[in-house]
Amino acid sequence: MTTASTPQATPSKFLPPVDAKARVTEWMRHLQDEICQKLESLDGLGRFKEDTWEREEGGGGRSRILQDGGVFEKGGVGFSEVWGSELPPSILAQRPDAAGHRWMATGTSLVLHPRNPYVPTVHLNYRYFEAGPVWWFGGGSDLTPYYPFAADAAHFHSSLKQASDVHHPAYYPVFKRWCDEYFYLKHRQENRGIGGLFFDYQDGQGQLYRGPQAEGAAATYRNELETLEPRSWEDLFAFVCDSGAAFLPAYVPIVERRRSLEYGERERNFQLYRRGRYVEFNLVYDRGTIFGLQTNGRTESILMSLPPLVRWEYGYEPEPNTPEAELYETFLKPQDWASWTPPATSEV
Amino acid sequence: MTTASTPQATPSKFLPPVDAKARVTEWMRHLQDEICQKLESLDGLGRFKEDTWEREEGGGGRSRILQDGGVFEKGGVGFSEVWGSELPPSILAQRPDAAGHRWMATGTSLVLHPRNPYVPTVHLNYRYFEAGPVWWFGGGSDLTPYYPFAADAAHFHSSLKQASDVHHPAYYPVFKRWCDEYFYLKHRQENRGIGGLFFDYQDGQGQLYRGPQAEGAAATYRNELETLEPRSWEDLFAFVCDSGAAFLPAYVPIVERRRSLEYGERERNFQLYRRGRYVEFNLVYDRGTIFGLQTNGRTESILMSLPPLVRWEYGYEPEPNTPEAELYETFLKPQDWASWTPPATSEV
Repeated sequence: MTTASTPQATPSKFLPPVDAKARVTEWMRHLQDEICQKLESLDGLGRFKEDTWEREEGGGGRSRILQDGGVFEKGGVGFSEVWGSELPPSILAQRPDAAGHRWMATGTSLVLHPRNPYVPTVHLNYRYFEAGPVWWFGGGSDLTPYYPFAADAAHFHSSLKQASDVHHPAYYPVFKRWCDEYFYLKHRQENRGIGGLFFDYQDGQGQLYRGPQAEGAAATYRNELETLEPRSWEDLFAFVCDSGAAFLPAYVPIVERRRSLEYGERERNFQLYRRGRYVEFNLVYDRGTIFGLQTNGRTESILMSLPPLVRWEYGYEPEPNTPEAELYETFLKPQDWASWTPPATSEV
Repeated sequence: MTTASTPQATPSKFLPPVDAKARVTEWMRHLQDEICQKLESLDGLGRFKEDTWEREEGGGGRSRILQDGGVFEKGGVGFSEVWGSELPPSILAQRPDAAGHRWMATGTSLVLHPRNPYVPTVHLNYRYFEAGPVWWFGGGSDLTPYYPFAADAAHFHSSLKQASDVHHPAYYPVFKRWCDEYFYLKHRQENRGIGGLFFDYQDGQGQLYRGPQAEGAAATYRNELETLEPRSWEDLFAFVCDSGAAFLPAYVPIVERRRSLEYGERERNFQLYRRGRYVEFNLVYDRGTIFGLQTNGRTESILMSLPPLVRWEYGYEPEPNTPEAELYETFLKPQDWASWTPPATSEV
């Protein structure tokens, strides 16, 4: 293979290998399997039920749901591989070079709603798109605690940072910030939780960041990211694999630490109330959910992420100097959790 | 005043009277007062708490909420009167002639979530807009039962039809159909409930119907409505007043008939599950809710309509030959309830 290139031509290292789709799809399936297996053993009681489904335009998936478990009140883990003749306008607006090409997409996603209010809700999603010469990876995972434990937030973020730093020192800081920006409820002026990682449209070109602040005011931030060296498909896939593999070690120890804490009606009520924010985010802002609902996706699979029981209360505000108030004041605002260190006399 | 008119000029009977805004606003306040008073007496236990609020760009409102009552688990009744310098693009798209004019809007709306699953949830909204020479009324009310009682559906629809027929025989059939089209969950292929009346952009011109089917396939339906004679501001306001006044007699007898029926866990679970559809409709489709959330409206007042407790369950389907199945098969599809007559041996 020659390394000579004509100006403007895409360097060959940017092309996916011939078996790219098969390799990513296989990995997405494997991620679903591995996570479900571990969650069942962690739960101790619940079992995932699987529904396989087909999509009329092409492709299908397998939705797995665990309800009324020992740890998880509801947990959904979905895998899908779908294809079609033309990507929808909402995606083409971001990737106009994909227009006129047949496309395929594969992904795995999950949302877990634990019963114990001291165990955080968690979300993960990884996805891969190909459309003619265009391809990209997206995904990440983020944590939504109900009660504030700095040690949990620090553990989750440090785990993701460690897996990212191996691949590029810019990944964690950029994708952590993108996550904070994306999982934000404008009408509440609140973050959904303590964040984690989120990225999209990763095609190995210099432009790392294409989040909500990519245009306009945050030009400095953007420019600083445009200096990145190009990264090959293999580089990115390796990062995605390690990032996905970091999920269980980032989340499971938190569940183990908190699952047996005693709680009462107050904590349960607060959990049900805060779950309302998850519903508001998913139905009002989440692009995947809205897109799916408006384009005849499989409704039960799309809405598998909604909590099993939710409460809305008019005018609720946490009492000052309570754990609930601390959640609002500190945890629902972006923090540098990866740098957090426990106080000298640790009490976590 | 001369009745001579130049071609294209708006006939003087289309102009609102000089005190139009004050009269409508006064009526909206009165509607809120009257409804709240009656609901408190019906509830027997709960009391409305009022929050008054101001809007930065101009105007404000009073939100009233009753929580944990004897009949109503949660009920919100809001009044507002707001103004500004330019209507948002979503409204200007429908009424381009309002561009460049200062505007005012006043409205009253309510959603009631009863505790007993045999008592239906209900929604009402009336609103009035003025922007320079442009003005219009919108509104209606609709019923969302959890358990199927044909007599209740017939009573609700007949009450609204009777109040409408006095003003124009086309109002009920057109606005009933508009309601069925508007309160529809595309992703579930279900109506939200049994409907009622819904209308918008009523300015007394010939065009009665501007609903979702106004363009394209339903041209026949549309043309049949375009033959209406013009109606004055006074004509329309009188219709709106009678339509609003019909709400309590349409709803209260249903509450009285069902409030003491015994129910168990099964009925309560089904009610909580079906309330999820209310959340899905309001957050995914309802233009007022989405517009409010995205434009810095008062979040707690906008989301006052959400149910107090809600359940989501993956893959739920009602068992055949149960009341729950009858709700899906008959009541969540448009029916001619106003023409329903009780069977000979009545068992309602």
